[in-house]
Amino acid sequence: MCFFAIRSGANRLTIVMTKANDPVEMCAKLMSRLPGIGTRSARRLIYHMLERDRTTMRELGVMLQSAANDVEECGVCGIWRTPNTPCISCDNTKRDASIICVVATVQDMQAIDGSGASPWSFHILHGLLSPLDGIGPDDLRVHTLLQRIHTMKDELQEVVLATPPNSGGEATAMYLSGLLKNLNIRVTRIASGIPVGEELHFVDRLTLSSALSARREC
Amino acid sequence: MCFFAIRSGANRLTIVMTKANDPVEMCAKLMSRLPGIGTRSARRLIYHMLERDRTTMRELGVMLQSAANDVEECGVCGIWRTPNTPCISCDNTKRDASIICVVATVQDMQAIDGSGASPWSFHILHGLLSPLDGIGPDDLRVHTLLQRIHTMKDELQEVVLATPPNSGGEATAMYLSGLLKNLNIRVTRIASGIPVGEELHFVDRLTLSSALSARREC
Repeated sequence: MCFFAIRSGANRLTIVMTKANDPVEMCAKLMSRLPGIGTRSARRLIYHMLERDRTTMRELGVMLQSAANDVEECGVCGIWRTPNTPCISCDNTKRDASIICVVATVQDMQAIDGSGASPWSFHILHGLLSPLDGIGPDDLRVHTLLQRIHTMKDELQEVVLATPPNSGGEATAMYLSGLLKNLNIRVTRIASGIPVGEELHFVDRLTLSSALSARREC
Repeated sequence: MCFFAIRSGANRLTIVMTKANDPVEMCAKLMSRLPGIGTRSARRLIYHMLERDRTTMRELGVMLQSAANDVEECGVCGIWRTPNTPCISCDNTKRDASIICVVATVQDMQAIDGSGASPWSFHILHGLLSPLDGIGPDDLRVHTLLQRIHTMKDELQEVVLATPPNSGGEATAMYLSGLLKNLNIRVTRIASGIPVGEELHFVDRLTLSSALSARREC
């Protein structure tokens, strides 16, 4: 349903469309809540689907609902899965269960899997420590990680802390290494330094400093 | 449900996740069909909703389905509306019915409405002529425009061709002005020239040439 409000300008009458319950505007409004999508981009996407691809629009609607209702975290590693389906980390015998790679998000896990690294087991924290935003250890999956380590202690050889090298990632890695240091397990941190293929003089000061201090024998 | 394929690399075994019927992957795949959204961006958006905003995800799902199923074109002007609701152009008595502004898309209509111009009636073509893409007059709402003009001929004073000043827009405007020239109606074309506030030396050659040849008395 559409309503109209009349706004008078300088010698001019402009009609502004005020829309309530209009599915097109509602779709655009909801989509503009997503990160990186503004009101105009959201409208462009919705108009595109309305004009050219109603099938995708319908299917996306069904799948978004299905994902929002059904997808849950695996109780052990935190990866998303639908109920009654195997977990792609825990139930996969091809993965090395003796090394747990701790990451902040599922996207980070996929990036590591896609890098051609060894197929480790994963543990998703679903976030990073951020005291300013009120995110503490209890808001992350830290307790589950400790439980998991205690359960499989004999089998476990290494915990790789693969949180990103920014303030939140470093704080989380420091906190976790502090927690794990007395457990007699090898705890490692992924290397931070010059990205492969990058020119030295284009690299920021902190990265360069980190690369220099983490130099190793060759 | 998730399946696994094993891909062997140089002395290395990589596990690639192959996912079928996984709602998360399905959502990302469908969203990556939208213009300007790649696979990684689509995943980022879906993961964002899964982690932080399941309500938006659920509501967006419902509204996308509702829009895909219910939204239709107004038979007269071509603007989208839901059945049994008034059309924001045709059923709005505040709009000047004696001037029809012809535009390519609903977004263009909204841009003109938002510019503070007089509240004209609109006619949406839902596209532009593009012989290379096989889009001819029968694929646009040209026939409906002619019918509309014939029906309201005495009342109609002007048809404003507000298609964009690019190849498709110019071709469409030329085609329409050719069709309308014998109907004894004023047919106008929006001006093309230097954007307001732009420096002359930053403007492209074609725009500058167009602005010079369209110079007027002051």
